[in-house]
Amino acid sequence: MTRLPDSELVLVPGGTLITKTPEEGRALAMMMVRHTIHNIQPDLDALKEGRKTYSVDPDSLTAASQVVAIEFQTIAAANNYWRKN
Amino acid sequence: MTRLPDSELVLVPGGTLITKTPEEGRALAMMMVRHTIHNIQPDLDALKEGRKTYSVDPDSLTAASQVVAIEFQTIAAANNYWRKN
Amino acid sequence: MTRLPDSELVLVPGGTLITKTPEEGRALAMMMVRHTIHNIQPDLDALKEGRKTYSVDPDSLTAASQVVAIEFQTIAAANNYWRKN
Amino acid sequence: MTRLPDSELVLVPGGTLITKTPEEGRALAMMMVRHTIHNIQPDLDALKEGRKTYSVDPDSLTAASQVVAIEFQTIAAANNYWRKN
Amino acid sequence: MTRLPDSELVLVPGGTLITKTPEEGRALAMMMVRHTIHNIQPDLDALKEGRKTYSVDPDSLTAASQVVAIEFQTIAAANNYWRKN
Amino acid sequence: MTRLPDSELVLVPGGTLITKTPEEGRALAMMMVRHTIHNIQPDLDALKEGRKTYSVDPDSLTAASQVVAIEFQTIAAANNYWRKN
Repeated sequence: MTRLPDSELVLVPGGTLITKTPEEGRALAMMMVRHTIHNIQPDLDALKEGRKTYSVDPDSLTAASQVVAIEFQTIAAANNYWRKN
Repeated sequence: MTRLPDSELVLVPGGTLITKTPEEGRALAMMMVRHTIHNIQPDLDALKEGRKTYSVDPDSLTAASQVVAIEFQTIAAANNYWRKN
Repeated sequence: MTRLPDSELVLVPGGTLITKTPEEGRALAMMMVRHTIHNIQPDLDALKEGRKTYSVDPDSLTAASQVVAIEFQTIAAANNYWRKN
Repeated sequence: MTRLPDSELVLVPGGTLITKTPEEGRALAMMMVRHTIHNIQPDLDALKEGRKTYSVDPDSLTAASQVVAIEFQTIAAANNYWRKN
Repeated sequence: MTRLPDSELVLVPGGTLITKTPEEGRALAMMMVRHTIHNIQPDLDALKEGRKTYSVDPDSLTAASQVVAIEFQTIAAANNYWRKN
Repeated sequence: MTRLPDSELVLVPGGTLITKTPEEGRALAMMMVRHTIHNIQPDLDALKEGRKTYSVDPDSLTAASQVVAIEFQTIAAANNYWRKN
């Protein structure tokens, strides 16, 4: 087992849901999903092994993109959708 | 059967959705998912057996991270997204 | 077939989404999921048979916990997240 | 093929999301899910055949209860959660 | 390959989320799901082939009804739930 | 491996959730899903291979349309549902 470094286990990297742009909010969404998974499975070897299959399985990719979409709903709401007014 | 202790069956650990930080809110989301599962299946042996398979199955990990994302939506809204104003 | 008693078929046990605490709200969420299923499948024998498999299948447990999370979103919003003042 | 009667194809039975009680709102949620499915598959024979398998498959029941939960979110919001104020 | 006509590829048929009634809103939800799929797979032959299996698979029908429920959440919110006030 | 060009990896193409019309909002939703997947799997060859199977699997199409529906919820809210007035 190769344990992930602590930085990969922070649940909300940066400690806030507020970002300057939608692009950064989206990147945060992706990172939050990954770090949740890191907390459930902190063994880098197991994660690498899993990546071999899910990264080439279209249904796995769709499922992963769905979790990102759900996290992004929260982050976008937190930022009032980055509306300028 | 090894029954989980009562503390593992509390549905909302701490008794509130309000947390000081997003990080704590996220930790609460993860705990609430786990405790829901504990209430459905309170046998530690069955849970440990299940962990062997889901913790190395990327689709299972994605599915687990999705439930955390959904719980976090609720907790983040409860905390007004920890916005400072 | 062993038909569930009528009390197990009430869709919103207690008749309200308002609860005193998050813990009670969470318990209501779990009960509402169960009672929905009771309404689709009111045969206790079929339900007991199903429990044998889903209660030891981690993916089934994750899926069940997700429905609870979705119901809880509704209940938590109904209660203004049990925020004080 | 035995085509369902038109009444089974109405998408929002009653024509409104407003109900007097949470219980009625929940019943509407269940009916809306069923009627959506009726619109996709209006052949009663096919539906009856499908029921044989999904009604005894716990994962199918969980999936069905999830759709009800999602519809109920909408109906509960429409009714301001039946809050008395 | 039999390409769908352009009208089947419009993402938001009618160009608005606002409808007169819940029934129309629900019909729009169903149409939006279909048209999304048309955009991913615009070959009528492939769609017809797929319909043979999913229209008699209860889990496929449940999954389809869930997407309709999610679209309807958006449309219902857009219409303030068709509340009369 | 054929790496996707950088433009295919932008998480929020256009850098904003605000669009002129629902149709454009829907197109953005579809693009955001695709670009999330591009970020997880940036190898065009792997994506093309996956498309062969998911584009003719009705359940895969339903799953893909669901992610679009979830993204659209966010975009529609950001645009106040393109309500006039």
